Amino acid sequence: MADDITQGFSFEVVRTCPETGARAGILRTPHSEIETPVFMPVGTQATVKTMSQQELEEFDARIILGNTYHLYLRPGPKLIREAGGLHGFMGWNSSILTDSGGFQVFSLSDLRKITDEGVEFRSHLDGSTHLFTPESVIEIEHDLGADIIMPLDECIPYPATPEYVERSCRLTEEWAGRARETHEKLGDSSCVLFGICQGSIYPNLREHFARRLVEMDFWGYAIGGLAVGEPKKHLFEMVEVTNAVLPENKPRYLMGVGFPDDIVEGVSLGVDMFDCVMPTRNARNGTVFSRDGKVVLKNAYQARDFGPIDPECACPACRHYTRAYIRHLFQCGEILAPRLATLHSICFYLETMREMRRAIIDNRFVKWRLEFLRRYRKEDTINEL
Amino acid sequence: MADDITQGFSFEVVRTCPETGARAGILRTPHSEIETPVFMPVGTQATVKTMSQQELEEFDARIILGNTYHLYLRPGPKLIREAGGLHGFMGWNSSILTDSGGFQVFSLSDLRKITDEGVEFRSHLDGSTHLFTPESVIEIEHDLGADIIMPLDECIPYPATPEYVERSCRLTEEWAGRARETHEKLGDSSCVLFGICQGSIYPNLREHFARRLVEMDFWGYAIGGLAVGEPKKHLFEMVEVTNAVLPENKPRYLMGVGFPDDIVEGVSLGVDMFDCVMPTRNARNGTVFSRDGKVVLKNAYQARDFGPIDPECACPACRHYTRAYIRHLFQCGEILAPRLATLHSICFYLETMREMRRAIIDNRFVKWRLEFLRRYRKEDTINEL
Repeated sequence: MADDITQGFSFEVVRTCPETGARAGILRTPHSEIETPVFMPVGTQATVKTMSQQELEEFDARIILGNTYHLYLRPGPKLIREAGGLHGFMGWNSSILTDSGGFQVFSLSDLRKITDEGVEFRSHLDGSTHLFTPESVIEIEHDLGADIIMPLDECIPYPATPEYVERSCRLTEEWAGRARETHEKLGDSSCVLFGICQGSIYPNLREHFARRLVEMDFWGYAIGGLAVGEPKKHLFEMVEVTNAVLPENKPRYLMGVGFPDDIVEGVSLGVDMFDCVMPTRNARNGTVFSRDGKVVLKNAYQARDFGPIDPECACPACRHYTRAYIRHLFQCGEILAPRLATLHSICFYLETMREMRRAIIDNRFVKWRLEFLRRYRKEDTINEL
Repeated sequence: MADDITQGFSFEVVRTCPETGARAGILRTPHSEIETPVFMPVGTQATVKTMSQQELEEFDARIILGNTYHLYLRPGPKLIREAGGLHGFMGWNSSILTDSGGFQVFSLSDLRKITDEGVEFRSHLDGSTHLFTPESVIEIEHDLGADIIMPLDECIPYPATPEYVERSCRLTEEWAGRARETHEKLGDSSCVLFGICQGSIYPNLREHFARRLVEMDFWGYAIGGLAVGEPKKHLFEMVEVTNAVLPENKPRYLMGVGFPDDIVEGVSLGVDMFDCVMPTRNARNGTVFSRDGKVVLKNAYQARDFGPIDPECACPACRHYTRAYIRHLFQCGEILAPRLATLHSICFYLETMREMRRAIIDNRFVKWRLEFLRRYRKEDTINEL
């Protein structure tokens, strides 16, 4: 397939943990060299909420997400193309991945209607009606100009019957084929297309449709439709089932996951890429993450805590400001509050990924995982995998 | 008076414009050396809205404002004292000036009652009742630990009858004396106290009460109660009348002014220090300032403007982002929008002050003023002073 030799793109696994499925790799795009496992900060509307692109660069973020649904509605793909694609529009020189908009169509818009052709939906902004087809979404994503693009899929809500899930997965599979055709027809080799594996919590459906996608040979594979309300044991079981089918030499992306400890478990199971609004959204609400778990900055007992969020953290929020000050900013509704909280949490996520990667490379991932989870969850009962 | 020899504080005029009243000076506090004329960004609640202290440092801001009314209510002066004063609390190593809270008591709080003792008011946060006296305000400001502090005054609304203004000024004068006594009694030489000249738009009252304050010998003088709705010709007339009375060797601070061109006129009249929420507040609403006047970033015609706010500006917003992108961020309500707009306007204000100072030092202020005002106001009819 053409994608495999797409210029400037490559993926290689440089080390695999002998005891778990964890792997360290390098994903190259024309815009950056991404060390995996990687967490991709979410920049829904062409901005990682509260952060500047320079702050992301200082944290050595090498890939971020943009959202096709939001950017299609505003400012529109043609304007972004005129601005030199998302990279030019937002002044971001590293890699970008755009999702397909499928998840947002199903979570944000009302009056959606799925047909074989595509999905009709109403804008959450002005109620106007729009149609996404597998073809139109790929065209939009080519206008946006991301490095990695996703095909339109149905993100199945939880719970769903096996019958519904099977029907939906057939549609997602068909759409994936049409997306690939459009992608190849556009003949633009500046981005690569992933396939999205669905199947809700049914191992046999997950396995079956993952195989079908692998037969279609995508450049990489996403595991979608998880972390949508199902019990956590299902989440990890589905990842395991899917990864068993996915080829070793292709990147694997677990969409929308998640909490720091869930990401560690995802890495253990062989996932390379993650994204989630968790660190940014929670930060704006005053909750940040650290080695010792969640920290609720708004709590009254922070008022006289004149130490940093995390004395071991090197982010600007921890280097320059106290919990007491940040809490005061939250109490006052000052913009510097979500800024500092977001800086800390994004720094923590990215730094945790780098630590994990070093542990995999140094053949000490199992030990690292155990120590991290025990401290993070404040439990001594973490299972050794 | 003790203040004159207060350790670490000094003010000197290093150059006076031979044709206007403009002067370049150096104001030293234990925290920084401030080149005047200076614009002081407003950090009402111990934060210059949307900015980090590091960003202010990058712009070489050497003095910012804090607000006594707001900080007294939240988080409270005792907590700030525990944190090492405002400097320690907010992690700001340069100078800080705190206003007296007078303006906010009169603009934000309802049910205020002025007596000889002080002013009783209701918190705009929770409706609780509080009393500010000239004595208590100085005590609060000593807790806050700013470098320059202001005494409680009545900020007279516009318009007001001469009778009301005279009565009010007598009270402000009496309060100034009580504030000074308290300041000296506290025996803390880490801050200096200014006097505030009031008098509404009545030249004789402005002159009379400015003289009275000068007799009381404060470390510096503020001109207050202007830019509160009076016609602009009054503003400049009152500044002129007051400055004629104020001693040459003391710093002069025009409170709450203002637009960039008003500041240039204030400097022409011999003012050394300015503060205003204009650049920060307008930026949050999508309007920024530049050499060519106001720029409304939200306007539809900015949508496809792929150039910076101001190609001559070296601020991060202009170096890295386009008007089209910033407009998009405003359309989406993204926090990066007010951040970038504020960065630009604060940079423009500070840079304009530095340019003005260089022009004064180089004996070319009259020419600079004319060129600045013609371009800024897009008029060829600017009067030569």
